[in-house]
Amino acid sequence: MSTRRDELLAKINAALDRLLPPEGDTALLYEAMRYSLLAGGKRLRAIMLIEFCELFGGSFDDAIDFACAIECIHAYSLIHDDLPCMDNDDLRRGKPTNHIVYGEANAMLAGDALLTYAFEHMLESTVAHENTDRAVEAMRVISHGAGAGGMCGGQLLDLENEHRGADLDRLVRTCSLKTGALFIAACEAGAILGGADERGREAAREYACNVGLAFQVVDDLLDVVGNAESFGKDTGADVRQGKSTFASELGIDKCRELAHKLTAAAKDALSGYVGADELVGLCDELENRTF
Amino acid sequence: MSTRRDELLAKINAALDRLLPPEGDTALLYEAMRYSLLAGGKRLRAIMLIEFCELFGGSFDDAIDFACAIECIHAYSLIHDDLPCMDNDDLRRGKPTNHIVYGEANAMLAGDALLTYAFEHMLESTVAHENTDRAVEAMRVISHGAGAGGMCGGQLLDLENEHRGADLDRLVRTCSLKTGALFIAACEAGAILGGADERGREAAREYACNVGLAFQVVDDLLDVVGNAESFGKDTGADVRQGKSTFASELGIDKCRELAHKLTAAAKDALSGYVGADELVGLCDELENRTF
Repeated sequence: MSTRRDELLAKINAALDRLLPPEGDTALLYEAMRYSLLAGGKRLRAIMLIEFCELFGGSFDDAIDFACAIECIHAYSLIHDDLPCMDNDDLRRGKPTNHIVYGEANAMLAGDALLTYAFEHMLESTVAHENTDRAVEAMRVISHGAGAGGMCGGQLLDLENEHRGADLDRLVRTCSLKTGALFIAACEAGAILGGADERGREAAREYACNVGLAFQVVDDLLDVVGNAESFGKDTGADVRQGKSTFASELGIDKCRELAHKLTAAAKDALSGYVGADELVGLCDELENRTF
Repeated sequence: MSTRRDELLAKINAALDRLLPPEGDTALLYEAMRYSLLAGGKRLRAIMLIEFCELFGGSFDDAIDFACAIECIHAYSLIHDDLPCMDNDDLRRGKPTNHIVYGEANAMLAGDALLTYAFEHMLESTVAHENTDRAVEAMRVISHGAGAGGMCGGQLLDLENEHRGADLDRLVRTCSLKTGALFIAACEAGAILGGADERGREAAREYACNVGLAFQVVDDLLDVVGNAESFGKDTGADVRQGKSTFASELGIDKCRELAHKLTAAAKDALSGYVGADELVGLCDELENRTF
């Protein structure tokens, strides 16, 4: 990982840690929210949002509140995804899932409250933002990516796939919504906040769409081939459940090929842009990651 | 009910019905969202938002998208509240609850997607809104009322009350967050959209805070005294569960007194305002309702 990325990750984690201080008679809710929000992770969506903002001329300060909001949305989606009525997972990143610690009802509320807080935080930021129009448009893009036309829709398809199976097209469609839509929202929102025109926004979407798919393809691969480093990761839930995955549909070699092709397409989307080294390096790293 | 209110209700329901057309491979999610969003109800929050907007000089068109969004948030909260891990209710307004029809996982997703859509819809409206600053501030207030500092926090207290019981102060606090916060957000957002100054916003909050409490007090009363008209209503869940309610803590007569006092305080908050007849009439009706 680059030094720049290390620093960015540290700044994002510090900013997240300043959110949602648990106090008063509802402290437990804030605790539950923080438990998942601060449970680590690569902060990919936040990093991409900030990088795209800076790529198009914006600053870290223009982007950080929206980057934190995207992580709140990601954290809420994991909490709800882990619940017994969804994937019923007890472990996430080697720690007990939210509902194991706080109970189902509180976990659901923590997810609801994190999603709501994402918008509250962005709106508080927008009131003070230099460019309200950009902030509003960035929020609009994020709300779309997180909702029925994006991530929530993808979750529905994913649930349906458990019963009906899924061919490659269906897997691509599911993943484009479930995982891709929030990557796309993060990258496009960053571009908007940085002042990108429609061509720039399109490049951000194209990058994110390919990275999102590649990310899932590699995830499925790692679930199959495993890795000593994956200890504590929630490995192989889909494999255990016998669900279709990119690995099960394509086999390992074709999976690697696909991940490589998608990563090349992601890099290609940024080929005309000076200063995109971090974003280019990031998708290379994601393709070659082992955990 | 006044003719004006009838017309307003019809316009709100028509606007809600135009949202979220179910199409494509995620049509089931939209169906589940619409099932609860269009299941009837008094649309109190939407009506209050629009009335406050107009009271301070705004138009129906300035307010309707935000009014629909508040109803999306209310609908999501009911779906999640009815889930097995929360109140585990099979019926809502005489119809099977969302999870009974669509299953737990889809119901949770429908709630998530409705909450997200509320913001998406407001943000789409904001892009086209004449006064972006007012729209942003209205959304900020709504996000706060719906979140950990409002409705979600109240849900947590309500869950805790099942185990630890609740004295009158605690009931007031719980209800102020669980029910009151969204009423307050609706009324204050309406006032903001209409162009109210801080004094006007304070009046809207004061009205809503009292109406919200009165609403719950009367609800608790109706759960105890029942009514022939209450057929099909989810009556008495709290009574069945042996939870503390305003009725159980105060008895019926003192409950009626309290509802009357709160309603008077709500009307009092609007005493200086010309054109508040509908809002005044509304809280009288809510106090004297029998279902």
